[in-house]
Amino acid sequence: MMHPIPTLHDGLRLADWTQTMKRSVLRDMIAVVSRPGILSLAGGLPAPELFPTDAFAQAASHVLATDPRALQYSPPFPALKAHIVDLVAQRGVSCTKNEVFITTGAQQGLDVLARLFLNPGGQVLVEETVYTGLQQVIAPFQPEILTVPTDLETGMDVDAVEALLREGARPAFIYVIPDAHNPLGVSMSAEKRRHLVELVRRYAVPIIEDDPYGFLCYEQRPEPPLRTLDNEWVFYLGSFSKILAPAVRTGWMIAPEALIPKLTVIKEASDLESSAFMQRAISAFLDAGHLPGHLATLCREYGTRRDTMLRALHECFPAEARWTRPTSGMFIWVELAPGTDTAALLTRAVEQEQVAFIPGHAFAVEGRSHASHCLRLNFSNATPERIEEGIQRLARVIRRE
Amino acid sequence: MMHPIPTLHDGLRLADWTQTMKRSVLRDMIAVVSRPGILSLAGGLPAPELFPTDAFAQAASHVLATDPRALQYSPPFPALKAHIVDLVAQRGVSCTKNEVFITTGAQQGLDVLARLFLNPGGQVLVEETVYTGLQQVIAPFQPEILTVPTDLETGMDVDAVEALLREGARPAFIYVIPDAHNPLGVSMSAEKRRHLVELVRRYAVPIIEDDPYGFLCYEQRPEPPLRTLDNEWVFYLGSFSKILAPAVRTGWMIAPEALIPKLTVIKEASDLESSAFMQRAISAFLDAGHLPGHLATLCREYGTRRDTMLRALHECFPAEARWTRPTSGMFIWVELAPGTDTAALLTRAVEQEQVAFIPGHAFAVEGRSHASHCLRLNFSNATPERIEEGIQRLARVIRRE
Repeated sequence: MMHPIPTLHDGLRLADWTQTMKRSVLRDMIAVVSRPGILSLAGGLPAPELFPTDAFAQAASHVLATDPRALQYSPPFPALKAHIVDLVAQRGVSCTKNEVFITTGAQQGLDVLARLFLNPGGQVLVEETVYTGLQQVIAPFQPEILTVPTDLETGMDVDAVEALLREGARPAFIYVIPDAHNPLGVSMSAEKRRHLVELVRRYAVPIIEDDPYGFLCYEQRPEPPLRTLDNEWVFYLGSFSKILAPAVRTGWMIAPEALIPKLTVIKEASDLESSAFMQRAISAFLDAGHLPGHLATLCREYGTRRDTMLRALHECFPAEARWTRPTSGMFIWVELAPGTDTAALLTRAVEQEQVAFIPGHAFAVEGRSHASHCLRLNFSNATPERIEEGIQRLARVIRRE
Repeated sequence: MMHPIPTLHDGLRLADWTQTMKRSVLRDMIAVVSRPGILSLAGGLPAPELFPTDAFAQAASHVLATDPRALQYSPPFPALKAHIVDLVAQRGVSCTKNEVFITTGAQQGLDVLARLFLNPGGQVLVEETVYTGLQQVIAPFQPEILTVPTDLETGMDVDAVEALLREGARPAFIYVIPDAHNPLGVSMSAEKRRHLVELVRRYAVPIIEDDPYGFLCYEQRPEPPLRTLDNEWVFYLGSFSKILAPAVRTGWMIAPEALIPKLTVIKEASDLESSAFMQRAISAFLDAGHLPGHLATLCREYGTRRDTMLRALHECFPAEARWTRPTSGMFIWVELAPGTDTAALLTRAVEQEQVAFIPGHAFAVEGRSHASHCLRLNFSNATPERIEEGIQRLARVIRRE
């Protein structure tokens, strides 16, 4: 069946920035590689077979049966805020309910903060390999994007951040995923965390600390988030997507209380409010005490999957390849031999071996080609057997280069 | 208990537009007038006692028990798109599934369209009395706001729109609620609808047609939406908030297929995607055939409440007062004697008679004072007995002026 390509009608004027709008490379690829029969290590999806579906269904039913406000417009649910205070305390983050701002997923937190901080054409400081969702958030502002490299063992190059700030850069914010970086899988060293926070205090630049993966840890207790080092300049984002399920579309921001009214106005413009029903259902799920056991299951199972992927890479991949060894999260970043084109490799991988990954360039800030020989692998969404099989297939494609 | 007023820490720079940010007057007032013991005709809430809670709970349980994709990241749910095609057909709107864009409530539709069309400092054309949520959406763009008056019997002054366009105005879009205007309660005449669509075609200006209330109609079949007259320039927004429940946070846009990819990129930046679970639960609710009967109940019950409020106004309010007679929706707009200050009246109404409404100035585009002697009354969220009692109380406060 042929689909005609739709065209815009004559004379319709769109905002200027839309001329440079890029279709999300990542989502396009995920659509391609989600075809039946493809063994995909591409997406960033949690394992659906581990979702606590029954417990969540019970919580949702209970809420609808007992809370007459569950389906109405309603302010942020105080009991959920209290749960979030307890939850982030497990990450070492100390805050009050008045500093908790509930969002429709952590992505909304990014969007709201960009509106709060960023002027059209303003500066933003990010790593040169960065979460695509952040790039989509800042695109409408047509910002000046300043970048720093990332060390694959210790994280963001904070000396490079310092050099930029010393030379006069004054970004509206610095964006960073200190734990289990997407796509790199790296977590930031304690020393770099202290240095970065010291810098943003000195230069008065807010940090957006994105922490969707911090609860998924497979080794020793991770370094505490940046927010534990500063509660004025660090805006801390978290999410239930990876620890409960993405479709609850609920996350949080920990922000200075003085800014909550402004954040609320910006959020209202975006979607009025987050679902009262969903907030109550999550709260009931947490009331019932389901999360600790579920997190333990996730850490055990994802830890096994990570180990399986690391072992398979070691056994199958060429000697010149290097990869990160994540202590948390969902991704491993692989550098192949310099000169390899992983976009072309993906085409061959899908055709020859029905296996898929995300080429590194998808995460590169526009115009940067440093990641063209790299790729991101996901280990949360496939069983250990499939992971082993997938890495073997991928290794065969690479060897045929 | 004293709450210290939080202050911003020194040196934190926010985006320029935030200096002119206004706390939502309307939400502030609703907080005040939601105090226990206040008989509120202020909000824009549907009647919670009419929510189809049991049927929705069954639908949600069914989905969680049977659909393994319900809690995962997932593309827009095709079955819900098909339901929306059928639903808008009841309003006379003809479209295909490929023109249906699912949003996290109609508010997100407004936000996404503003990003698509509006440049910083660009022009927007609205009525001088306009839904506050639209004002919040455009505020970050610091736009030039062009306004036209609204006739309380026939709607937006389309001749004034034509005059502006003829004089060279080229707004990024025109925003209008043709049916059951919030806050005015008026629906646009057929002649004005045709004239407006003819104008936007001639001058190549898109219309955002906001239609959250069109299914709630109490008399003859309403005039068809603008979208029935044009499928290129009219961007049609609808919502399940008023016909199912607000907490499902799901709405839709009908837009030209060629624009769906760009709309998708903008939406992804806002919240990645709307909840797969919620989309499936709504779809299951619709599959089960619950909506027609529920809509009939809403129209019958809200119709009774409207009639009760109109009769009470007629019996109790001073002779010089005038009000709209809505054929659909949730609001009646009242003009009191010129010179009346309804903001001051609200304070007295709450103190003396524990009754509340929204003063007209809350909806006035900044700087306009034309609505200072007006007020908005809601008739969907109180029983007929409470409505009668509320109007009697309010009339007493007005008589004491």
